[in-house]
Amino acid sequence: MASPRLKQWFTILEWLPDARGRRLQDDLLAGVITALLLVPQGMALALLAGLPPVVGLYAGILPPLVYAVFGTSRTLAVGPVSVASLLVANALAGIGAEPGSTEWLQGAVMLAALSAGMLLVMGFLRLGELANFLSHPVLSGFTSGAAVVIIASQVPQLTGIPLPREDGLLTQLYALAIGLSGLRVGPLVFGGVSLILLWLARRSLVRWLARLGVSPRVALVASRAAPLVIVLGATGASALGGHALPGLTLVGDIPRGLPMPSLGFLGGETWRELLPAALVISLVGYVESVSVARVLAWRRRERVDPNQELIALGAANAGAALTGTMPVAGGFARSMVNFEAGARSQMAGVITALLVALAAVLFTPVFRYLPLAVLAAVIIVAVIPLIDLHALKAAWKFDRADGLALVVTFLGVILVDIELGLVFGLAVSLGVFLWRTGHPHAAAVGRVPGTEHFRNVDRHNVETWPHLLLLRVDESLYFANTAILEQAVAARVAEQPQLRHVVLVCSAVNRIDFSALETLEQLADNLARSGITLHLAEVKGPVMDRLRGSGLLEAMGGGRVFLSTEEAVEYLGTRVPPEAESPTGQG
Amino acid sequence: MASPRLKQWFTILEWLPDARGRRLQDDLLAGVITALLLVPQGMALALLAGLPPVVGLYAGILPPLVYAVFGTSRTLAVGPVSVASLLVANALAGIGAEPGSTEWLQGAVMLAALSAGMLLVMGFLRLGELANFLSHPVLSGFTSGAAVVIIASQVPQLTGIPLPREDGLLTQLYALAIGLSGLRVGPLVFGGVSLILLWLARRSLVRWLARLGVSPRVALVASRAAPLVIVLGATGASALGGHALPGLTLVGDIPRGLPMPSLGFLGGETWRELLPAALVISLVGYVESVSVARVLAWRRRERVDPNQELIALGAANAGAALTGTMPVAGGFARSMVNFEAGARSQMAGVITALLVALAAVLFTPVFRYLPLAVLAAVIIVAVIPLIDLHALKAAWKFDRADGLALVVTFLGVILVDIELGLVFGLAVSLGVFLWRTGHPHAAAVGRVPGTEHFRNVDRHNVETWPHLLLLRVDESLYFANTAILEQAVAARVAEQPQLRHVVLVCSAVNRIDFSALETLEQLADNLARSGITLHLAEVKGPVMDRLRGSGLLEAMGGGRVFLSTEEAVEYLGTRVPPEAESPTGQG
Repeated sequence: MASPRLKQWFTILEWLPDARGRRLQDDLLAGVITALLLVPQGMALALLAGLPPVVGLYAGILPPLVYAVFGTSRTLAVGPVSVASLLVANALAGIGAEPGSTEWLQGAVMLAALSAGMLLVMGFLRLGELANFLSHPVLSGFTSGAAVVIIASQVPQLTGIPLPREDGLLTQLYALAIGLSGLRVGPLVFGGVSLILLWLARRSLVRWLARLGVSPRVALVASRAAPLVIVLGATGASALGGHALPGLTLVGDIPRGLPMPSLGFLGGETWRELLPAALVISLVGYVESVSVARVLAWRRRERVDPNQELIALGAANAGAALTGTMPVAGGFARSMVNFEAGARSQMAGVITALLVALAAVLFTPVFRYLPLAVLAAVIIVAVIPLIDLHALKAAWKFDRADGLALVVTFLGVILVDIELGLVFGLAVSLGVFLWRTGHPHAAAVGRVPGTEHFRNVDRHNVETWPHLLLLRVDESLYFANTAILEQAVAARVAEQPQLRHVVLVCSAVNRIDFSALETLEQLADNLARSGITLHLAEVKGPVMDRLRGSGLLEAMGGGRVFLSTEEAVEYLGTRVPPEAESPTGQG
Repeated sequence: MASPRLKQWFTILEWLPDARGRRLQDDLLAGVITALLLVPQGMALALLAGLPPVVGLYAGILPPLVYAVFGTSRTLAVGPVSVASLLVANALAGIGAEPGSTEWLQGAVMLAALSAGMLLVMGFLRLGELANFLSHPVLSGFTSGAAVVIIASQVPQLTGIPLPREDGLLTQLYALAIGLSGLRVGPLVFGGVSLILLWLARRSLVRWLARLGVSPRVALVASRAAPLVIVLGATGASALGGHALPGLTLVGDIPRGLPMPSLGFLGGETWRELLPAALVISLVGYVESVSVARVLAWRRRERVDPNQELIALGAANAGAALTGTMPVAGGFARSMVNFEAGARSQMAGVITALLVALAAVLFTPVFRYLPLAVLAAVIIVAVIPLIDLHALKAAWKFDRADGLALVVTFLGVILVDIELGLVFGLAVSLGVFLWRTGHPHAAAVGRVPGTEHFRNVDRHNVETWPHLLLLRVDESLYFANTAILEQAVAARVAEQPQLRHVVLVCSAVNRIDFSALETLEQLADNLARSGITLHLAEVKGPVMDRLRGSGLLEAMGGGRVFLSTEEAVEYLGTRVPPEAESPTGQG
């Protein structure tokens, strides 16, 4: 028996012994279905990354096998993914490589190696939580933007009109408009027909087959196989003479066979230049993978370990680098397909990988006549669902700031630069968070007559006392908001000349940092010089533990820490100083 | 009569009419005392910035006059300050200028102009609060580090041993050690004697004079005049033959007269390179100025307007640029002197400026024989109090993370680079804040028997129920912590097989962002698939307003929002499902 510790690292020890009987059958079917989808998509994604189509198949062989050894998600489908392909092309164009050159291919492999290194290091340091700093709106804006950029990048293959690749959507639209005369019949026919068929297959095939009385299982397989069937059909049509249509570019010869392990990429020279791109590829790929893995795990009350996922995805990318292909991740759509097709364990991923390997060994020559326009259609149909207008509407409606972060990221990605767009979005979301916590809601409170409840004086009809200020701050106190708290107190001190006691009600203060401590000490001191005493009320246990060791309680002089606001009023309210009037609310 | 709006911009309309009688007398005395201090310090600070001594006097003329027109602090002493001088020298060395060259002087003026522009823009945009993001520990570490770097920069003047200026403290110490044979008698004697006398005057003169029966007011003036007296004495000793001592460098001819307004600096070419340094100079100068202005304003129940201060300091720096001098700010020590000397209004600053102008016109030739070593001693004695070991101890004791931010900033400043040190510190303090809010304290709570109070189940002996999980989260929910919240729930769901209801107690949740909303919706959905209902309790008003418009309440299905935790238990606890056991705490 393997030790639990060993099983934690090598999850294959956990799932492999169970892979038999009905379970194995389920995994077999799911693996086949996913492979049917992956073969055309893999080739298309390789082209998106500016790589030979077979490299996309390679990305579906060793990486998922490695993931199956280490991964904690039973149903995550690891392999080539659209956003990573786009980022690879963007990064390599950014360092001035030529698509199709040796330098380009080597660069893609180096990116996989760098991602592997980063993910593994983060995994060993248990930094999985870093991914949490990509907020949902930023991620949504990024994914939608990347999908738009991907679609734009496929327009040349669909139309025959060359477009600049890196200059943002506006330039591309302009180039498209002035280049319309270059529209070519070949790609338009093949691409257009494929687009329509793929779209129909995706949207309606299962429903149609069900109406015809086909069993749901068969209908599912049929709908997942549709892209492959369409690709094969288009290849046939092209081979039978379609390839003579004007402007049509074909895939051409694809070398047959398996990738040979090689460390040749280590000789590359642009490691440093590729670092930022590799970081983005790793983070985005990781976040996408873990998000979908979590969603799927919940459905069967399984668990995903975010740190072990870093290790598993890092190892999968090491496998990608070793077999000369581009960075990989767990794809959202393909994982959903795998899950819905009934995958029970990582065995499904193993089956998929073996089938893709088989395709690489046996069937690549089949695709000789496949028009690139058809693969462009495959990509476009795959990424259209990534454009999430619903998220934009919902985010904007819930919170303008979140909507803004989404829009900034989206526009940054499509108009400026993919990676910069992500950085903009991160900056906005962190900035908004800091701005808000830096501007806490602080309300003077008074007592609801006849109760022990205290409410905002501006909103409720409550008792107040001229010698007493009860101030509730709805935020932890830290460096960015202490000055504002001090100003709020100062403003009220100026307004309330009879003031003798200020009570800070800390029921919503979860933490006090050193800057806040110093500000409070100074505030106590400043108030004391004006004959005003600072008190605290409703301080939480952990905060009180901290304060006890500090100089604040001393700086507060005669100031006390009250368990409740009511206790503060009882104690201070009954001692109205001679020169102060009687409480307004007590007649 | 000037309108209130006009008075808000031009504070001189407020204070000037009151400047008469006893008030004016007070300001006169304070202005004289501050000028006595500023004349030697100004020359010394100019040398620290690598500029001719007279430029330091210029910084004490127009800038404080301009500040008096716009500033809201009655007692802030605006002029040359040590940290800004250091940053100027650092920035100009960084762009490869030669100390003493025209390019160097022009660069200093350009930095003043850039600071003016930045402060004015921030002022018109009312961005004064940006300064709050410099936490106290970072500011303390930065100031202490800058003081150490300043002292190190004066060692060559005191010893005659040349040291590299920019390579960090370790290199400088090494250069000092191997250069010890170059120790020169002249600077050592003049510098050493001045250091000792200045230190004694600072520490003990007031006390000694008081013991001799001198009135406190006279003693104060005498102690503030001590640096000037010592400088004059040293100049005399030097002129009478001391200047022949080996290795002594003298100030030399100082042009007499007032600075002529000039826009010549506009022809400079290194604007872009100087931008980052100007930003740091502006921010640090602004934060220092506003901090001391606030402290002093509190003492007399006056108010400082942070945004108007941006305008006033920006205008003062514009004055500095116009009169060909370096960036200015409100100095901490000199402002304290001004305040303690009895300054009542900005008139004190005007008096100081006029006296410094008088010194520039009449007395500069006096300092011809002044040894640089004496000015080095003036600087060192001025900055030693900036090294704040107490803050380090207090911060470390109160909170390791705050201590770390302080130490990282300090070490970054002295070992790496002054500005980078500040950036490191900012990164640490923001990182720590995000990390902490990203890892909220979340506790399962149970009922204290016989009460309506709920406490952490791990710390107190409380009632719990196997079909019910009450989870209290002590933090606002936002993108960085929602995944962790989800994990916490998932872990407890796995542990508690009879679980039917999860109640999130939101009493400490001040805000929920869109990422958190989506996570909660997904959590509700995921729980529902496991037959568990999600509820909320004690949701604050503003948070509830937000949630009402969102899809969460819908996603929660049968889940409810309870006003109190007790209400949740009443409602859910009495409906124990058949397969769940009876509440453990109710026998």
